[in-house]
Amino acid sequence: MSAEDMVKSRIMIIGATGNLGHHLATAALRSSHPTFALVRPSSFSDAVKSRTLATLSDAGLVIIKGSLEDEASLLEALRRVDVVICALPAKQALDQKLLIQAIKKVGSIKKFIPSEFGSDPDKAHVSSMSYGFYTRKSEIRRVIEAEAIPYTIISCNFYMSYLLHSLVQPGLMVPPRDEVTVFGNGNIRGVFVKESDVAAFTINAVDDPRTLNKVVYLRPPGNVYSMNELIEIWESKIGNKLKKKYKSEEELLAKIKETPYPDNMPFIFIYSTFIKGDQTYFEIEESGGLDGLTLYPNLAYTTISEYLDTLV
Amino acid sequence: MSAEDMVKSRIMIIGATGNLGHHLATAALRSSHPTFALVRPSSFSDAVKSRTLATLSDAGLVIIKGSLEDEASLLEALRRVDVVICALPAKQALDQKLLIQAIKKVGSIKKFIPSEFGSDPDKAHVSSMSYGFYTRKSEIRRVIEAEAIPYTIISCNFYMSYLLHSLVQPGLMVPPRDEVTVFGNGNIRGVFVKESDVAAFTINAVDDPRTLNKVVYLRPPGNVYSMNELIEIWESKIGNKLKKKYKSEEELLAKIKETPYPDNMPFIFIYSTFIKGDQTYFEIEESGGLDGLTLYPNLAYTTISEYLDTLV
Repeated sequence: MSAEDMVKSRIMIIGATGNLGHHLATAALRSSHPTFALVRPSSFSDAVKSRTLATLSDAGLVIIKGSLEDEASLLEALRRVDVVICALPAKQALDQKLLIQAIKKVGSIKKFIPSEFGSDPDKAHVSSMSYGFYTRKSEIRRVIEAEAIPYTIISCNFYMSYLLHSLVQPGLMVPPRDEVTVFGNGNIRGVFVKESDVAAFTINAVDDPRTLNKVVYLRPPGNVYSMNELIEIWESKIGNKLKKKYKSEEELLAKIKETPYPDNMPFIFIYSTFIKGDQTYFEIEESGGLDGLTLYPNLAYTTISEYLDTLV
Repeated sequence: MSAEDMVKSRIMIIGATGNLGHHLATAALRSSHPTFALVRPSSFSDAVKSRTLATLSDAGLVIIKGSLEDEASLLEALRRVDVVICALPAKQALDQKLLIQAIKKVGSIKKFIPSEFGSDPDKAHVSSMSYGFYTRKSEIRRVIEAEAIPYTIISCNFYMSYLLHSLVQPGLMVPPRDEVTVFGNGNIRGVFVKESDVAAFTINAVDDPRTLNKVVYLRPPGNVYSMNELIEIWESKIGNKLKKKYKSEEELLAKIKETPYPDNMPFIFIYSTFIKGDQTYFEIEESGGLDGLTLYPNLAYTTISEYLDTLV
């Protein structure tokens, strides 16, 4: 059976009013999946969330009232769909535990895509200093494995809305035009992918049997650069060279230590990505993962250069 | 000295990227106050918050890096301004304690407008069932009084972005066109004020000596209606009568009890407002408060009818 012949799975999205979630809902509807969203009743009292839901609802989204704390609502919702995608704030990762138990109980869910995204938590060198950011996600992986829930994990690395708008200069609102700080030697590569593109890759993976129980990594060409490369791209756009200041690994670690949580999180992510190379130090295939670009070579996406064009 | 002769106070806003906060910053800048925002460094890593700050910065906002947990940054920031306005999420109300100690220590702040807004927490009949929503705000009032910090409190009642978009029907995204639920007898009045109008009233109160150590209540004509009146206004706009279903006080209390927190909060606020009358049961002057409309009769604001026009 070719992919074209397949019946499109019914997808339920949890967190559909959020940053990634509303792109997931839009992408699922565009791909003609019957698309559902589990929405907690209190979301309807907020005009902004309600407007998002109304727009998605007009596009065909079916709203199911329920919450991750209410098992009865979860069981009822799960009986109406084939695939569950979770897109929660990272702090709430552990709130997926009851959902996983409910998926186990119902037994009919073909695939669970947990609220992970970001970088691979099992590959990060900064787990112990991340205030649970990565350990919570790893813990959810272990629960999924222990319960033998069919899954796909999307490792999309950085969202484009994080850090890139300042050219990875915490504290700046726009990219610098005179002086720039380089962390480490500036040669380690990180990855930035636009949220709507992450959503499109994710929805493509839903009914793809190749992705069953696999981690799909996103490293699109044009979206994987070192700090030195990012600076060079930016310099060519503004027609001006920046003065480079270097911050060593030791200085960055000191900065992380002296800055209170959560304000030090951006520096922790920079340390992980541009010093330790957590987003790119491993070969995808060797690690047992799949490359999203190899799976879906024809998917259009926004490159870093295109994104930076909007900031010139 | 007339109000026109006064030098405009330097205002610092805490929470300037938030729902009310960015309106406060805009209103302060429009009124030609030297305007500052205390911004935690991690806010700059978020493209949305950064864009808000960049826009406000273009309009003249001065950004001071710091946080409510860092006393040194608070003391330094407080020495640069005359007035502090806090606009935090309700859950974070107690995070103002260190700020209040710092205001006390610096000794030069002419006025503190705490993160209260909403309904008067000392007047609410639902404090004990509000999961700390009102008790935290009352606690902050007591700390301010105990430390003898000069203050003004703005009691603006409901924001227009809360509940009104569905005509006070939790679970609906837009106002109903066939059937509507009335809570209680439908004759108790509540108040809805648009966030940008709340901000304008607040900024007017900053340098007004009449508001020193007072609570300013907002009950603008055209913004104070019972559920029956709201329904009547909506019916006249859509040219159609709605079928009314009534939910008694007992039924509403049962609903609050059976619905898990935080999804029951909208029902608690409805109970407080449209059954107990917490926003309107008391006379403003008798309670020792000031009426924002009496203070600033010429301020333009959006009425409920004008808001509902946008939903027809």
